[in-house]
Amino acid sequence: MQNREGCVAADRNDPLAQYRDRFSLPEGVIYLDGNSLGVLPKDAPARAAQVIAEEWGEGLVRSWNTYHWFDLPVRIGDKLARLIGGTAGECVATDTTSINVFKALGAALDMQREDHPDRRVIISERENFPSDLYVVEGMIELLDRGYELRLIDEQLTLEAALGDDVAVVLLTHANYRTGRIWDLPTVTAQVHAAGALVIWDLCHSAGAVPVALDEANADFAVGCTYKYLNGGPGSPAFVWVADRHLARAKQPLSGWWGHARPFDMAESFAPAQTGRKFLTGTQPIISLATMEVGIDIALSVDEAALRAKSLELTSLFIQLVEERIPNSSLTLITPRDHAERGSHVSFQHPEGYAVMQALIARGVIGDYREPEVLRFGVTPLYLGYADIWDAVETLRQVLAEEPWNNPEFQLRGAVT
Amino acid sequence: MQNREGCVAADRNDPLAQYRDRFSLPEGVIYLDGNSLGVLPKDAPARAAQVIAEEWGEGLVRSWNTYHWFDLPVRIGDKLARLIGGTAGECVATDTTSINVFKALGAALDMQREDHPDRRVIISERENFPSDLYVVEGMIELLDRGYELRLIDEQLTLEAALGDDVAVVLLTHANYRTGRIWDLPTVTAQVHAAGALVIWDLCHSAGAVPVALDEANADFAVGCTYKYLNGGPGSPAFVWVADRHLARAKQPLSGWWGHARPFDMAESFAPAQTGRKFLTGTQPIISLATMEVGIDIALSVDEAALRAKSLELTSLFIQLVEERIPNSSLTLITPRDHAERGSHVSFQHPEGYAVMQALIARGVIGDYREPEVLRFGVTPLYLGYADIWDAVETLRQVLAEEPWNNPEFQLRGAVT
Repeated sequence: MQNREGCVAADRNDPLAQYRDRFSLPEGVIYLDGNSLGVLPKDAPARAAQVIAEEWGEGLVRSWNTYHWFDLPVRIGDKLARLIGGTAGECVATDTTSINVFKALGAALDMQREDHPDRRVIISERENFPSDLYVVEGMIELLDRGYELRLIDEQLTLEAALGDDVAVVLLTHANYRTGRIWDLPTVTAQVHAAGALVIWDLCHSAGAVPVALDEANADFAVGCTYKYLNGGPGSPAFVWVADRHLARAKQPLSGWWGHARPFDMAESFAPAQTGRKFLTGTQPIISLATMEVGIDIALSVDEAALRAKSLELTSLFIQLVEERIPNSSLTLITPRDHAERGSHVSFQHPEGYAVMQALIARGVIGDYREPEVLRFGVTPLYLGYADIWDAVETLRQVLAEEPWNNPEFQLRGAVT
Repeated sequence: MQNREGCVAADRNDPLAQYRDRFSLPEGVIYLDGNSLGVLPKDAPARAAQVIAEEWGEGLVRSWNTYHWFDLPVRIGDKLARLIGGTAGECVATDTTSINVFKALGAALDMQREDHPDRRVIISERENFPSDLYVVEGMIELLDRGYELRLIDEQLTLEAALGDDVAVVLLTHANYRTGRIWDLPTVTAQVHAAGALVIWDLCHSAGAVPVALDEANADFAVGCTYKYLNGGPGSPAFVWVADRHLARAKQPLSGWWGHARPFDMAESFAPAQTGRKFLTGTQPIISLATMEVGIDIALSVDEAALRAKSLELTSLFIQLVEERIPNSSLTLITPRDHAERGSHVSFQHPEGYAVMQALIARGVIGDYREPEVLRFGVTPLYLGYADIWDAVETLRQVLAEEPWNNPEFQLRGAVT
């Protein structure tokens, strides 16, 4: 598209255009941060109000039965399973992504300890979202059995790292900084061929990039619901376990919500035989129930159309930046190859933090990540082609007008 | 009090009577289950609506800064610390009680492993809330280093169990079935004298029974906020760590929210040096913010007056049952001694489940716990003396009129 009119025309022909009306978007904002915190579905406030006033306020403790609160993690988990190519019973909505990484890692290490007791290496990516690495660190120190974290990066490829000492591979499907995605089926097969198990972190792909876990024969997956699934700030995460592992998988955070018969109040733990065994304690019902609204919207969307529009919008963003802001200090760090690109676009810029502050001040909300990275999330459900045009135009103005275009001005110190 | 008029008069003179107006109570209900799920504070719906519409909907990702969401677990944790006799920085509001037990247990075992490597016993109570025991079971299996769970009960007292092989003692301050409370300062000293560390579960005491953790020299504590603190269904729990342990304590669920500088996105974990180190992943902001309303009410209450009224109401309940329903099959299992009683009253009854169903049908909401236990929670903030009279009168009618008073009628099978 060579001009704004072309973008407006594309919006008119967009088969997903009607979804924008399902969300509340603030006036005067182009929101390019749905990969950090998704927007508010219009039906979410009413759902939350109902849970609070009717279910909690009127129903009180009876609502555990009347409204099946205890089954909410499983019911929503079944919906999430559909979204990520799993089947009912494999997934629960619960806790946080980090805690779910701990559970999946514990289960995977336990299986490998039985099958391959000498495998003591956990592979992950140096560029992974740091919390995933912190969880692995914590697990290694806790177990204190000589496990080792091996980080792949530009120097050490996955292929080279996958020795016969590897127990588990923990990868994030779409990278949080660059937006690069792994070829999930191919990598899963590669990990299995090396005798290891794989845990996929889907935080930056669930709801934005098609995922087919069962088809790929994946082992474990985790992810969050507050980005592309629009579940609300800090809405509960999910953990998915392949059906074939469910009977055997033992997650270390055993608690009453994962018990086969929780209300027997038995002295000993006996795990449920479905994904419910990955639950631990009492879940935050208000956040959990509210997030279902966003997930229901995601379930109603045609996945192929969503992916197509996402790629068109990220490609348009890249094209417009390169054509309309030539000779800028922006360096694209997101892959150009569609097969390797998630749903956001990132550029490095030496004054990235200041540039992002200036963009936000003008209503174009992306975010900044160390080091020097401007992230622009593209969420096809509520963004259009003209939004991309306008965002790039604002970026062009910011870079043209603001003092950091002048190399003598040390801006970084001036911005808090 | 010998009659209803006496109860009504006591309500008129009740210094806490004005608190009832801070809560939404359904018409026609006497709510004796605040020890399971507390009631809705009148200000909670507006607070939740604000978080959802303004903070999430309008503020979007900017609200992490504008509304200090990231500090919410610490800010609310500081308030909780005041409620349980701790100091700012010792407590965070986060995750679930079971997960917090895991963190505290992990930290305590780690300290003991360094100080007393041969101590491999974890003491708890057979009558503890089962999830606490499941967490210990899970930890023991995960570590697989010969740890052992030793359960105290009527046969094995704490004193007899406290050998020089004990690393950690995990006790629930107020028992979930009987309402019996431990003498927290005395037991803490006893555990320390035996060279062990203590973790107190305050689920059934925080907000109902005075707790002074710093004064008692306690080590760790956990608890929930959805019972006497009226935080809402499944509202996040808390974990408290004595200031003197904070620098050293290492909790095993390390994640970015517990990092000293989370937004550096550093590759390695470096824990915060306050209670924040007990955080792991992104918290459910809607549930967390909403629960603060109940905690603020609890903080405004005179603790001594609350405890005095709680004991008067539970004593009245016991007295009225014994005087007005003589020769029933009800067996009191809650201690008569005030020093040993929490804030609920429990009776066993051979048809306990059916009796409770009949009570609930008549608007007197308590709950049933296996085996055969009728629990009646007494929450002095929104219950009065006449409520207790009316509840006991309903219990009297149920036991007098219903078929299970007839031993030939096998009721249990008829009730689902």
